[in-house]
Amino acid sequence: MAEQRERIQDIAHLGRVELLTPKPNESLWYFRDVLGMEVVHAQGQSVYLRGYGDYAAATVKLTEAKNAGVGCISWRAASAQALERRAKAIDATGLGLGWNESDFGRGRSYRFRDPDGHLMEVYYEENKYVAPEELRSTLKNLPQKYTGRGVNVRRIDHLALLAKDVAANRTFAQDLLGFQLREQVRYNNGATEIGSWLSPSPVHHSVAYVADIKGGSGRLHHFSLWVDNREDVLRAATVITEAGVFIEAGPSMHNNSQGFYLYTYEPGGNRVEVYSSSFLVMAPDWEPVTWNEEERGTGTYWGAALPESFIQYATPNVEGDAAGKTPEFPVFF
Amino acid sequence: MAEQRERIQDIAHLGRVELLTPKPNESLWYFRDVLGMEVVHAQGQSVYLRGYGDYAAATVKLTEAKNAGVGCISWRAASAQALERRAKAIDATGLGLGWNESDFGRGRSYRFRDPDGHLMEVYYEENKYVAPEELRSTLKNLPQKYTGRGVNVRRIDHLALLAKDVAANRTFAQDLLGFQLREQVRYNNGATEIGSWLSPSPVHHSVAYVADIKGGSGRLHHFSLWVDNREDVLRAATVITEAGVFIEAGPSMHNNSQGFYLYTYEPGGNRVEVYSSSFLVMAPDWEPVTWNEEERGTGTYWGAALPESFIQYATPNVEGDAAGKTPEFPVFF
Amino acid sequence: MAEQRERIQDIAHLGRVELLTPKPNESLWYFRDVLGMEVVHAQGQSVYLRGYGDYAAATVKLTEAKNAGVGCISWRAASAQALERRAKAIDATGLGLGWNESDFGRGRSYRFRDPDGHLMEVYYEENKYVAPEELRSTLKNLPQKYTGRGVNVRRIDHLALLAKDVAANRTFAQDLLGFQLREQVRYNNGATEIGSWLSPSPVHHSVAYVADIKGGSGRLHHFSLWVDNREDVLRAATVITEAGVFIEAGPSMHNNSQGFYLYTYEPGGNRVEVYSSSFLVMAPDWEPVTWNEEERGTGTYWGAALPESFIQYATPNVEGDAAGKTPEFPVFF
Amino acid sequence: MAEQRERIQDIAHLGRVELLTPKPNESLWYFRDVLGMEVVHAQGQSVYLRGYGDYAAATVKLTEAKNAGVGCISWRAASAQALERRAKAIDATGLGLGWNESDFGRGRSYRFRDPDGHLMEVYYEENKYVAPEELRSTLKNLPQKYTGRGVNVRRIDHLALLAKDVAANRTFAQDLLGFQLREQVRYNNGATEIGSWLSPSPVHHSVAYVADIKGGSGRLHHFSLWVDNREDVLRAATVITEAGVFIEAGPSMHNNSQGFYLYTYEPGGNRVEVYSSSFLVMAPDWEPVTWNEEERGTGTYWGAALPESFIQYATPNVEGDAAGKTPEFPVFF
Repeated sequence: MAEQRERIQDIAHLGRVELLTPKPNESLWYFRDVLGMEVVHAQGQSVYLRGYGDYAAATVKLTEAKNAGVGCISWRAASAQALERRAKAIDATGLGLGWNESDFGRGRSYRFRDPDGHLMEVYYEENKYVAPEELRSTLKNLPQKYTGRGVNVRRIDHLALLAKDVAANRTFAQDLLGFQLREQVRYNNGATEIGSWLSPSPVHHSVAYVADIKGGSGRLHHFSLWVDNREDVLRAATVITEAGVFIEAGPSMHNNSQGFYLYTYEPGGNRVEVYSSSFLVMAPDWEPVTWNEEERGTGTYWGAALPESFIQYATPNVEGDAAGKTPEFPVFF
Repeated sequence: MAEQRERIQDIAHLGRVELLTPKPNESLWYFRDVLGMEVVHAQGQSVYLRGYGDYAAATVKLTEAKNAGVGCISWRAASAQALERRAKAIDATGLGLGWNESDFGRGRSYRFRDPDGHLMEVYYEENKYVAPEELRSTLKNLPQKYTGRGVNVRRIDHLALLAKDVAANRTFAQDLLGFQLREQVRYNNGATEIGSWLSPSPVHHSVAYVADIKGGSGRLHHFSLWVDNREDVLRAATVITEAGVFIEAGPSMHNNSQGFYLYTYEPGGNRVEVYSSSFLVMAPDWEPVTWNEEERGTGTYWGAALPESFIQYATPNVEGDAAGKTPEFPVFF
Repeated sequence: MAEQRERIQDIAHLGRVELLTPKPNESLWYFRDVLGMEVVHAQGQSVYLRGYGDYAAATVKLTEAKNAGVGCISWRAASAQALERRAKAIDATGLGLGWNESDFGRGRSYRFRDPDGHLMEVYYEENKYVAPEELRSTLKNLPQKYTGRGVNVRRIDHLALLAKDVAANRTFAQDLLGFQLREQVRYNNGATEIGSWLSPSPVHHSVAYVADIKGGSGRLHHFSLWVDNREDVLRAATVITEAGVFIEAGPSMHNNSQGFYLYTYEPGGNRVEVYSSSFLVMAPDWEPVTWNEEERGTGTYWGAALPESFIQYATPNVEGDAAGKTPEFPVFF
Repeated sequence: MAEQRERIQDIAHLGRVELLTPKPNESLWYFRDVLGMEVVHAQGQSVYLRGYGDYAAATVKLTEAKNAGVGCISWRAASAQALERRAKAIDATGLGLGWNESDFGRGRSYRFRDPDGHLMEVYYEENKYVAPEELRSTLKNLPQKYTGRGVNVRRIDHLALLAKDVAANRTFAQDLLGFQLREQVRYNNGATEIGSWLSPSPVHHSVAYVADIKGGSGRLHHFSLWVDNREDVLRAATVITEAGVFIEAGPSMHNNSQGFYLYTYEPGGNRVEVYSSSFLVMAPDWEPVTWNEEERGTGTYWGAALPESFIQYATPNVEGDAAGKTPEFPVFF
């Protein structure tokens, strides 16, 4: 047996997600008052926020834009050297956009686009959050106290991105970013790659690529934030319901990742998930789990069905119902 | 500023823990019927078990011995190359014991002792668990179904080891194994290192070294197994109480690691923890959190005190009360 | 204001439910191994079971029958005198069937049929459960220890019965049994009584009457058993899924009663609910909460839809789809 | 066997508790901002509050006073007739104080003192809470929405009162109020009645009488408020810790009542419990569970010890340590 190549371990984790919103005030209300995040900075058309357990100064950047969707997706490198290595490797692919000056709370980054066109960057220098007096926790290892406001999400967790060519983007994430492939949905006896879930760390997935059935580009399926356990997701459902925010699906349990999900639409239109309980993947030689048409079932463990909108809707939105055109793509997450 | 050296990422995770017990039948009952682990193999004086979520064939090895304590602690390398690198590096320290033939479920390993004398090994080849029909889950990404028997622990989590010289062992784990230092207890204005918590992965700690106040060698404070959430720990307390097993402390919440703990003594005498909810550490440049005498308080977040036995007792047990002799070592975890 | 009549307080609680099953062995497996109930007695074509928290010797009677459905529904009186009073009052209505000899675990009962034909009885003398040694709890106030087997339901909770004339049965329960009306679904500006939820105690509802859209008689919509909290219902979903039992809906939260539900079909065909977290009603002058077509929405709090089968299916089953015939009856619980 | 006398069912539930506090502003902060209750009214030296699930307009009355302690304890009658009956019966004992004009949110009451001198009243007319627009829930059966502020207790649950003569007060509650005796602690082969837990409804206990080891009069051990489940109590511990409020004991599980407890001191000095998961008692012929010295153990199910202050401290406080004087009274709840 040939020696297995060692996996690149240059990316530590998902560092920041920029969300675009045509309704900045309402979106801010959602993230601050309903999800319970803290506002740490405002600059230009952007507001920066964080979960109480995020160690970084800011993990969500909310930017006013004409259409909803995802802006820049930031990956933190494992070291300064790792950042250099990734920049060089990506530059060689022709997908690189070059170095970018520092944004709030982090040093310079190397920017690029994934094959589907999503804007990404790798950076290393990160400002750790220092809580003001009133947000200091009695726990020294907690960057900020649990305020109990709204859902009070702990930290950002992952993104699900749509892509015309799942395989191309998945391969890019594996080869250029060093992500490990965790799970896949493959139809037609494995010939059609519907979705792939990947991660640079034991966190089950930091990014998922799923087939864009409407042929868009650079679109977002959902952005996911973490709470500590399933009971917190149930509590979130009540908080979100009472806030009058639309719940699309859940709380229930996915078969993929074993995660416990709750899908909502933030006022700007982006699908946001409150999430918990996915399992950690520790195996360095993890064999991707693959689900076919039948095994996917409804994409949930206990039998609950995900609604049609879960397939049809993403941001920015593309008009028209694509289901009829591509019956072979009944994608469920 | 000088360039920071990159952290060695050659160890993936804690792979297996061998526990020694003078009461093998009773200990087996505890792990199988009370904690709900599955027996997968028996060989010589040892029985091999696993948690339903462990991907490996076996993660606990229960071995009959004159005294309770920890046997061999096995770390899985991130790759075959990583194994070679670690073997070479440890060999150079003079602490190496050489290559060991394969044990059940894994390939060859390189054995060594940490400075305090605990027996350890690094290995790479691991047999993944293949469940028999009756233990197959309807979840393809779960190696074995949740049986619901007893506590039904998901997986092994970490070890707390006693050491005469915490700093020496902590440095060994950092330099030779590449573990990241997560938290410390330091008394006397930082001069006395009471305990250090370390990990090779985002899991908060895979091993802790704590001062052995009785001057023993190679001793075990506790071995910890994971359940999904705090409610599962509460349920465990009821299952364990009804089984007549001694509960030493908990369920309650540690300040260190934010973990939710329940400490019991398995019939062989080893302290076993049912554990959940510790936070993940994703930062590559994590700054260790240090607690002094006052901050430690009782070592718990909500104020519950840990009992005196938590300081005095470890396996193998050493007679006599060391508290009077070393009042400066009121160690709490 | 005229003096309000005092509510009859002669019925203490739902005491026992007899379920009919054409598959007695499979149904027994479901209640014993999946739900975790204890078998306490067998007699004739019946097996008697109990939840670990039920104080009575037996609370479920599983009887072999040609068709699934509910057999005799037993209400425990508040005293011997209360039993006599209820017997007299019911006897006067012409619905009485007379006194019945003692069944296992309880004294004589007065039997009757509700207006829709469901067989019921009132009794007072009840044998308290005395656990055998191996099932004795370390808690003196718990009749039997929590075994942890399967779902391990604590106690029986309530029944939902179908009725051609909801109002007639609801009135009977109020006037003859002294039940307090808790909630109602009323359509057509209140003119059509779709369902009524009632109870003799602070337990939110012990019986519900819901319109039988297929015009059957004496049918059962579901029988419900209690677990301690929502996390237990989630755990139940996993246990039941792994056992291969069909889950029809949930886990999710009803708006009516605020209960957290999980609906399954036991192998004999009866719909069985694992239930928790409904609120207690303490007000002696509780004003029934009424929901109209719009407010009912899907009958759930967070927006999850109940499936069509939830309306169409009951036991014994009646063939044919009644939905088309009675579009005005989209009943959701 | 002689006919058993029927239990009086004239009291429906604990309706309101008045707490006295020498620090009204700080106590208000505790109940409103930490426990998350709503302020509904202020009058004289009193502020009226409610839990989001309480159906009444107000359930807690916080009154400025020189010393901490309990003020008037209000029991709601089951009907107007029941109120008259109780007034007559109590009047005949010589403990009656006569009719009292209406207080905020309720009609007239009949006031009395229990044998130990605690001020009590029975009333029937109660104003139901009508939420202002911003506090209206999307659930029609919930009087007020879950705001998520602080602990967000659902409703009041019970009181534990100290008494020089437990038996006298217990007998009064049974005979005059119709409460059912649920559990007892009896020492010296049953000769010494240490504590008695009673209730007028299936709620496990609405009042407990426990021996006052310091020989005080009319004192309060603790007042208890309900949250939905154990996870909510754990969350409460974090919210309360971060608010800097003293936690005396818990979260953990009592053996008596099986309740899950968390004891804090509100700033005025009264011990306040956040409580959940006690079992319902449905049996009309419930046989009181009695615990002796040995069985009580620490008064907790899993072995956690209650601190000495739990025995020594009550409000109003009485100086001096009574433990030495009355070693036969190591009372644990």
